[in-house]
Amino acid sequence: MFRHRLADAAGRIEAQFAHVLGKLDPVPVVQAMGYAMRGGKGLRGFLVLESARLHGIEADRAIWPATAIEALHAYSLVHDDLPCMDDDDLRRGQATVHVKWDESTAVLTGDALHSLAFELVSHPNCGPAAVRAELTHSLARASGAQGMVLGQALDIAAETADIPLSLDQITALQSGKTGALIEWSACAGALLAQADPELLRRYAQAMGLAFQIADDILDVEGDAEKAGKRLQKDARAGKATFVSLLGLEGARSRATDLVDQACDTLAPYGAQAETLRDAARFVIARDN
Amino acid sequence: MFRHRLADAAGRIEAQFAHVLGKLDPVPVVQAMGYAMRGGKGLRGFLVLESARLHGIEADRAIWPATAIEALHAYSLVHDDLPCMDDDDLRRGQATVHVKWDESTAVLTGDALHSLAFELVSHPNCGPAAVRAELTHSLARASGAQGMVLGQALDIAAETADIPLSLDQITALQSGKTGALIEWSACAGALLAQADPELLRRYAQAMGLAFQIADDILDVEGDAEKAGKRLQKDARAGKATFVSLLGLEGARSRATDLVDQACDTLAPYGAQAETLRDAARFVIARDN
Repeated sequence: MFRHRLADAAGRIEAQFAHVLGKLDPVPVVQAMGYAMRGGKGLRGFLVLESARLHGIEADRAIWPATAIEALHAYSLVHDDLPCMDDDDLRRGQATVHVKWDESTAVLTGDALHSLAFELVSHPNCGPAAVRAELTHSLARASGAQGMVLGQALDIAAETADIPLSLDQITALQSGKTGALIEWSACAGALLAQADPELLRRYAQAMGLAFQIADDILDVEGDAEKAGKRLQKDARAGKATFVSLLGLEGARSRATDLVDQACDTLAPYGAQAETLRDAARFVIARDN
Repeated sequence: MFRHRLADAAGRIEAQFAHVLGKLDPVPVVQAMGYAMRGGKGLRGFLVLESARLHGIEADRAIWPATAIEALHAYSLVHDDLPCMDDDDLRRGQATVHVKWDESTAVLTGDALHSLAFELVSHPNCGPAAVRAELTHSLARASGAQGMVLGQALDIAAETADIPLSLDQITALQSGKTGALIEWSACAGALLAQADPELLRRYAQAMGLAFQIADDILDVEGDAEKAGKRLQKDARAGKATFVSLLGLEGARSRATDLVDQACDTLAPYGAQAETLRDAARFVIARDN
């Protein structure tokens, strides 16, 4: 069953991360790095492991970029939760890093996770140097000012804008903020095999957008305890979302269409890709 | 003359950076990235260019890691200056990013510079994939929780500690906080040439420590206007420094010894390494 496979991948990534952290000085920042990695769904790391399997890459190679992308994602959450950003006190069902420790520890913990992601993705165990260089370069682009950080910057700008964003603008914002890392994760398996990532890219683009629409629906309809974070934040902030623009039913139907599209894109991979199709279906069925 | 060569390198790095930034959306974060890169000495980038020249590497390859290390250094300054960290309002003679913009922009600007550093250091123009993978992996280690961030974390812990740090502890702290990036910069030329970086590493370790001792002397004796940042912060905070532990004359003499040692280490490179020796002499003679 899919949730079981996802949990299994998350467990393997957490074990690998604990192994890496075990070699560092146990200063508070390093403790907070381990804390920030706890309790995530592990969806991005799972996409790396699963797209790698599809391309015949062994898990003991793919675990490095899988752990890297989860470290990068965790860094972005620690910084996003800071008082000067989203000011959240709850994440993954536990107090955020700046609440549990303090703000300076949270800034440094994010920074350390950020560097660690690049250490892991360029690790000799990932494979040939050409693969490591390509994984690194594409991850840097996906996470920087033309990818994730651009999306975050547009999101902050939207909060203070006089006119709510249009559907096109929100789609662009989200393709950076959450889409870029999801896309990198799905492509990583092909990159590890030095194969063409194009089909996986198209799959991930549709799935990433569905993921964000589902997040907006969850923000309106979800159970904060299951989600492990505060909800109804967007509505309270008066922000335009896929739900405010499309309505609840419109958003649901758009997300379903995108998941169908993501699944169809993988047709050339045949039955081998069924777990990735399950992953696409999962992103609109999850409660956290 | 050395200062001229240093300024020339800084100018080339700034131009390269402007070229890279020019391809990004001109959102506030991207503007702030350019702002944060302005007015630095460019010492780390200079070390990359000069150690590369020593190993016969053309400047149009070395400019990529040189720009990368300056981007990484700039990110660390933007985050260091945040209210929850050192809370500085002046850096490189201009208002800090969170003062000129706001805190969330400063967090994201640092994050974007951090990713950009890895994009540049893994850029195809740096050379063969083996070189790019090695530059990336070593930079990630130098900047993370076993390098720069560890030094920053120890520095923050020292501020709230009951007992001032010992000389050994301050040396360990600084070898992370400023030493790790200086060491990477000096080694980069050898890594670009796939040569042994050992001599450059020893040179940089001595020079990095001299750099930090000089910073402590500058903090006591310097002119804030020339330094472009607030001074006398350590004494006011009651922090142990090389000056508080060794006295002003003791610190000066230790720094001079370290510079001599750094210069001697480069003997096998002969006269070719004279500019790097000048760089070591510069770090204890500078006023900013």
